[in-house]
Amino acid sequence: MGALHEGHLEHLRLLEPEVDVRICSIFVNPTQFAVGEDLQKYPRDLQRDAALLAETGCDALFTPGEGSIWPDGYATWIQVSGVTDRYEGASRPTHFRGVATVVCKLINLVEPDVMTLGEKDAQQLRVVERMVEDLNLRVRILPVPTHRDPDGLAMSSRNRYLSSDERERALSIYRGLTVAYDAINAGIEPTEAEVLMREELADGVVPDYCEIIDRERFAPIDATSTDLIAVIAARVGTTRLIDNMRMPPVHR
Amino acid sequence: MGALHEGHLEHLRLLEPEVDVRICSIFVNPTQFAVGEDLQKYPRDLQRDAALLAETGCDALFTPGEGSIWPDGYATWIQVSGVTDRYEGASRPTHFRGVATVVCKLINLVEPDVMTLGEKDAQQLRVVERMVEDLNLRVRILPVPTHRDPDGLAMSSRNRYLSSDERERALSIYRGLTVAYDAINAGIEPTEAEVLMREELADGVVPDYCEIIDRERFAPIDATSTDLIAVIAARVGTTRLIDNMRMPPVHR
Repeated sequence: MGALHEGHLEHLRLLEPEVDVRICSIFVNPTQFAVGEDLQKYPRDLQRDAALLAETGCDALFTPGEGSIWPDGYATWIQVSGVTDRYEGASRPTHFRGVATVVCKLINLVEPDVMTLGEKDAQQLRVVERMVEDLNLRVRILPVPTHRDPDGLAMSSRNRYLSSDERERALSIYRGLTVAYDAINAGIEPTEAEVLMREELADGVVPDYCEIIDRERFAPIDATSTDLIAVIAARVGTTRLIDNMRMPPVHR
Repeated sequence: MGALHEGHLEHLRLLEPEVDVRICSIFVNPTQFAVGEDLQKYPRDLQRDAALLAETGCDALFTPGEGSIWPDGYATWIQVSGVTDRYEGASRPTHFRGVATVVCKLINLVEPDVMTLGEKDAQQLRVVERMVEDLNLRVRILPVPTHRDPDGLAMSSRNRYLSSDERERALSIYRGLTVAYDAINAGIEPTEAEVLMREELADGVVPDYCEIIDRERFAPIDATSTDLIAVIAARVGTTRLIDNMRMPPVHR
């Protein structure tokens, strides 16, 4: 989606030993924004992005126009069920349909051997993993760890909207995730670890959700869950931030 | 779907000058049958099919198991809107979702340069054309003309269910299509040609639909329509038959 930061450039660096040619797509995809979301004000700076990519060793930049991705009469949508029901999917009902469809199209247009996806958008990563497996798309997904500022704040194009006071409060999101990790690591039950995580959130950080869940199903933990992830979405002022952390594996 | 007849073998023959290697998939796809449809009694004879394919010059036969195409936890569906709203889509609401999804999977698994589809399933052909274009699938579709018995009956795996009396009545479907073609060719308006087509159907041939429509949108003709097709679905006894014919082009 462009507005590149260090977190994005890390994708290129992780790809270097994996492939011969690195291609970056930049496409601010309207079909994953709902009416009233921040499509219009989503930051765009293609010239700066292109310069950063060239410096970092990107071989080609793919910037399709809206009309070539979504031409008149476009009619085909990819719906991934289950893993899209909750969390980001609950508050943004058509979001993942737009994501899955555009990612499938970009894969088919570029035909990469390897595709990176940021772990920061944990549910998006899971949705695309599910789609690639289900539709037998011939691409390997390389997840890229979340890039954090030294104080722990996850890099996001939306961080620029935070005042310095809001930014200070937002740091409690990362602290909460760390508290949850340490608690699970110490053998504390996930439900209890989740309470500790919530308590860590600062005043003015209003969670949409703040849970420890089953990563495979992107659903509440059940008796079969072994792969857990703590996920948080919260509003800080008018800015909505998301972050997450994989939890230590559960042995059953 | 197997149960091969001359109409299927024609696909291989048309492909011969186009490609180096010809691969046939046989998969009786459960997700395109609704509850109560003829999935269980759909004819299957893989040994006979394999022999016919080998004789005709097929290089490989791909017969995936149900569990490898639709494994536990499968969650991703491709929905093509518009062209699926009417005709076969109206009476079988999940049919084309199953068709589009399995065809996308088979394309991704086999990665053909060229894929054949029978013109007999005219709406299915249009749905897959739409999906391939919309999802940027890198495959060329080669439509295969409907194979007919000398008396005009379109070949179908379901013809075996017809008694000889039913078969005689069913010939009026082809006659109706021909009447429509000749009428349009003579400059008669499509609405009038449609009436003549309906009148041609024999007693005991009960149409689900019998219309001249816009092939591009698979919808009723409007002022922009140039590519017309006559489509018929009808029950003859307990057997449901479909057939169609492209009409002469309309110049506007």
